[in-house]
Amino acid sequence: MQYYEDLVVGTVSRYGHYEVTREEVIAFASKYDPQAFHLDDEAAAATHFGRLSASGWHTASMVMAMTVAHLKANSQAGLGSPGIDELRWVRPVYPGDTLRCENVLLEKRRSKTKPERGLIRGETRVFNQHDELVMSMKALGMIATRDPAGTD
Amino acid sequence: MQYYEDLVVGTVSRYGHYEVTREEVIAFASKYDPQAFHLDDEAAAATHFGRLSASGWHTASMVMAMTVAHLKANSQAGLGSPGIDELRWVRPVYPGDTLRCENVLLEKRRSKTKPERGLIRGETRVFNQHDELVMSMKALGMIATRDPAGTD
Repeated sequence: MQYYEDLVVGTVSRYGHYEVTREEVIAFASKYDPQAFHLDDEAAAATHFGRLSASGWHTASMVMAMTVAHLKANSQAGLGSPGIDELRWVRPVYPGDTLRCENVLLEKRRSKTKPERGLIRGETRVFNQHDELVMSMKALGMIATRDPAGTD
Repeated sequence: MQYYEDLVVGTVSRYGHYEVTREEVIAFASKYDPQAFHLDDEAAAATHFGRLSASGWHTASMVMAMTVAHLKANSQAGLGSPGIDELRWVRPVYPGDTLRCENVLLEKRRSKTKPERGLIRGETRVFNQHDELVMSMKALGMIATRDPAGTD
């Protein structure tokens, strides 16, 4: 198990391989973001998206799927997230794209009120198969401490 | 159709009624956020969530579903969003909860490079059936202008 004490600020992690399918783009958008440019080829062609593109919330959710798989592979003792800063959808994500992530740990500190928790902040950048940045965000996270009495 | 020119800074909109079901919470988490506290009652009981709770990305997606329905009802000429600032998951969202939104338009300005677009920034606050804040965010948006030669 990986705990707060094991994390090193500045560490870069590269992970994930998510193939974006047309079927999934339309299924997600139909339920959560039914705007024409996420549902219909013709309507999308008339907008700055150019063609059918994934909902930004779908992209964020695909990023979460890659991140959870990565955390599980590293047996990280995650406790959820209080939030996200500066989420940016930089380029459209299209069916047929393959996404991957790069994360850097920006900072870590112990919770002042709950010593069994550490608080972390990381930046995640998401790229397509052309190595173009499609999304970025700074995510807050919580992780269990191995030793609540520790001082690091 | 509602355009950039029709939006008034300070306007408060209240909308949405989303019933969170256990089936949907588990379906979303299974695909996009398979952490134990979003999938399993017993595992969730052992965490600060207390019981099975929705993925934060699922909550954000449900908010988007309510928002798109609201924009369609107002025939707003939305062009998508470049991003989100200060997304905060304030309280857990549980199966059985009913969510609603309050949005205030914080600012609007014409795009300097694309006069057919306006840029807006709004704050959305999401409440459960006990009127407890469960999520908040500041969202950026793009909306078509009626008159690209306008100066307001």
